[in-house]
Amino acid sequence: MTSAASTHEAFDAVDLIRTKRDRGTLSRDEIDWIIDAYTRGAVADEQMSAMAMAILLNGMTRDEIARWTAAMIASGERMDFSSLRVPTADKHSTGGVGDKITLPLAPLVAVFDVAVPQLSGRGLGHTGGTLDKMEAIAGWRAGLTNAEMMRQLDEVGAVICAAGDGLAPADKKLYALRDVTGTVEAIPLIASSIMSKKIAEGTGALVLDVKVGSGAFMKTQDDARELARTMVDLGNDAGVNTVALLTDMSTPLGLTAGNALEVRESVEVLAGGGPKDVVDLTVALAVEMLAGAGRPQDESAVRAALSDGRAMDAWRRMVAAQGGDPDAELPVAKESHVITAPSDGVLTRLDALAVGVSAWRLGAGRARKEDPVQAGAGIELHAKPGETVSAGTPLMTLHTDTPERFERAAAALDGSYDVSADAGSSTPRDIVIDRIA
Amino acid sequence: MTSAASTHEAFDAVDLIRTKRDRGTLSRDEIDWIIDAYTRGAVADEQMSAMAMAILLNGMTRDEIARWTAAMIASGERMDFSSLRVPTADKHSTGGVGDKITLPLAPLVAVFDVAVPQLSGRGLGHTGGTLDKMEAIAGWRAGLTNAEMMRQLDEVGAVICAAGDGLAPADKKLYALRDVTGTVEAIPLIASSIMSKKIAEGTGALVLDVKVGSGAFMKTQDDARELARTMVDLGNDAGVNTVALLTDMSTPLGLTAGNALEVRESVEVLAGGGPKDVVDLTVALAVEMLAGAGRPQDESAVRAALSDGRAMDAWRRMVAAQGGDPDAELPVAKESHVITAPSDGVLTRLDALAVGVSAWRLGAGRARKEDPVQAGAGIELHAKPGETVSAGTPLMTLHTDTPERFERAAAALDGSYDVSADAGSSTPRDIVIDRIA
Repeated sequence: MTSAASTHEAFDAVDLIRTKRDRGTLSRDEIDWIIDAYTRGAVADEQMSAMAMAILLNGMTRDEIARWTAAMIASGERMDFSSLRVPTADKHSTGGVGDKITLPLAPLVAVFDVAVPQLSGRGLGHTGGTLDKMEAIAGWRAGLTNAEMMRQLDEVGAVICAAGDGLAPADKKLYALRDVTGTVEAIPLIASSIMSKKIAEGTGALVLDVKVGSGAFMKTQDDARELARTMVDLGNDAGVNTVALLTDMSTPLGLTAGNALEVRESVEVLAGGGPKDVVDLTVALAVEMLAGAGRPQDESAVRAALSDGRAMDAWRRMVAAQGGDPDAELPVAKESHVITAPSDGVLTRLDALAVGVSAWRLGAGRARKEDPVQAGAGIELHAKPGETVSAGTPLMTLHTDTPERFERAAAALDGSYDVSADAGSSTPRDIVIDRIA
Repeated sequence: MTSAASTHEAFDAVDLIRTKRDRGTLSRDEIDWIIDAYTRGAVADEQMSAMAMAILLNGMTRDEIARWTAAMIASGERMDFSSLRVPTADKHSTGGVGDKITLPLAPLVAVFDVAVPQLSGRGLGHTGGTLDKMEAIAGWRAGLTNAEMMRQLDEVGAVICAAGDGLAPADKKLYALRDVTGTVEAIPLIASSIMSKKIAEGTGALVLDVKVGSGAFMKTQDDARELARTMVDLGNDAGVNTVALLTDMSTPLGLTAGNALEVRESVEVLAGGGPKDVVDLTVALAVEMLAGAGRPQDESAVRAALSDGRAMDAWRRMVAAQGGDPDAELPVAKESHVITAPSDGVLTRLDALAVGVSAWRLGAGRARKEDPVQAGAGIELHAKPGETVSAGTPLMTLHTDTPERFERAAAALDGSYDVSADAGSSTPRDIVIDRIA
């Protein structure tokens, strides 16, 4: 009753907000309109944030989520990889601490003649961003044109680069809004945000790494399963061959959190070594991507490509194709600070969120989009849960160029780990908790 | 975790939004901060609207509402009537269709040596605004300085004027935001909005006219009672002697909706006549105001002041003190359109909301704050529910200066009334439903 009468808009934003506020269902036309109107500025930020909060608290039907996603795709361009001579597969992680999996995974999958168009983002808050990690490599550049991306996929088979501005611009605007309005954690909005970009990107197969635990957006398995189910349905309904793995994020992945530190660990994996959880997850995701792309390989064949140097060769070609020097020394932070084990015993717990926040405070992440990151900053772990430690020996090493950050970074780790004389029934976790197809 | 670290603010808006989103309770310091920070622009509109939606859906405790109200009062100046030689009493209506009660009520109460500092607003949407009505009187001006207001209270005993910008500026900003974000209907926010202004205004006694029915914000008695209870508690806790009457707004008050039309009806009441529901409600509210101010009068004494001309004398002094000519002809709309009764029978229903929307479309109200209103536009009713009508005789007359509006105005009235051969058990409603103290 307020403004629709005096404009030429098909709907009034206030009416639509009220519908969702009062637990109603938005029609397809209403959803198409609000996404379009928000993108062109006819729906204001303060209206969309009220809508986002109503969606977070009152939910959306499967039909609403599908239409919301379609409307965000329609807000921009779609890519098309059908001219490539090989199938495509992509991976998306919902974000965690020490999650460097994209780095070894993309070249590993490319070894088997499946092209990997890995559009990635930067970190915000305590979770790292793949582009920030890759930029620790001297000369490497994240920005490619669509034509450059296609050529690299054709010639190298794998690319990690920034998503262009043309892909789902509605999502870009909405994500930035959700970030400052406490509306990030809405499953319909998370699912449609991720899937609009992945569907618009045009990949043939998609594997979702849905993380659960303290270092993930989803703290409970129920929430993670709901998000996974929602995204798998959205993908398959849109013709993208989609599966999800639910994976553990209660403790950091691998032994490093921080940009250059994680590149180093990724290169270890590509050289046939690296921490068991990182290798296991990389292989599990590669097996799914290859199956989804119609070129199935068993696990041993995939592991062989890591141990015999083929994945490393693909990595070196991929880095070089984007101006990076795969032989360059990685940046090292100027200062370090060691945290030692308080007693002899078994490390029974090491909290992912605390390590993520600490690495972020050391300079590995950013508080605001426009902030720079330190390539060398971050945390090295010297033990993983389940391993034995001795009193006074190093448990973690904190790295930064700006040592005034040590105090707040160390404070984030207070109470984040337990060392117990009695290892009890603690068994090493399985990194993959479940598969949702 | 996003921005507090990089600014000098005591809190992070996102953390507070999340607290309310997750059904937590905001601390006193958090509430003080967010109101202050929003007023000075450090909390953005899109953050406050997400907070408002979370409050609407998840509620607030009594302590939270009290502190929210106090923080809005603290955002501006407070008035002080303690230098007046008489006590003060004020009335606030939650808004309805044909609600012109303030016009006869303020001078009526002043007759009994209780000063009435009636700060009023303009209409938005289907409910009219007292200032718009008074401005139908030639020469009358709504804007007074605080000093002018004090002098008029001292000399005349009653004033109806616009609230100055200094009173609860946080509420002004928040109300405008809620209006465009579907967050008007939150009881904690409605209660704190009304009571912050009334407490800051400094009245000694306050009577709330909480309307319930189709033409009111509160559609159900349960909601209206909750709002009344919340406001009465807020007022009494802050030292304002506060009671509430729950009154019927299922059908319009009186026989007119529209600015000059309602002034004319108010003058009829002040002349000892007027529709029964308007007179009854005016008298009931006056009795409460006088009791609250410590100068109780019984109903017959109050009615006498209407019939013997003392209230009219006070009205004429009040209008004249603000430049108005109480003898001026009231504006009349250029065009009119009659709606006739479809059959012989009893008018059993006449919907308040439909009449309000129709009057609004005729030009009596505004769609946006900056729109003008037509003084003469509105609706005259020729029958009230319970009265007998004859087929083809006038049921309502629509007035406007812009006859192209008739079609949409008449459309709003479709299905809004019933004429029944069988009057059934329909008895005339009591205007006052309940009293909450």
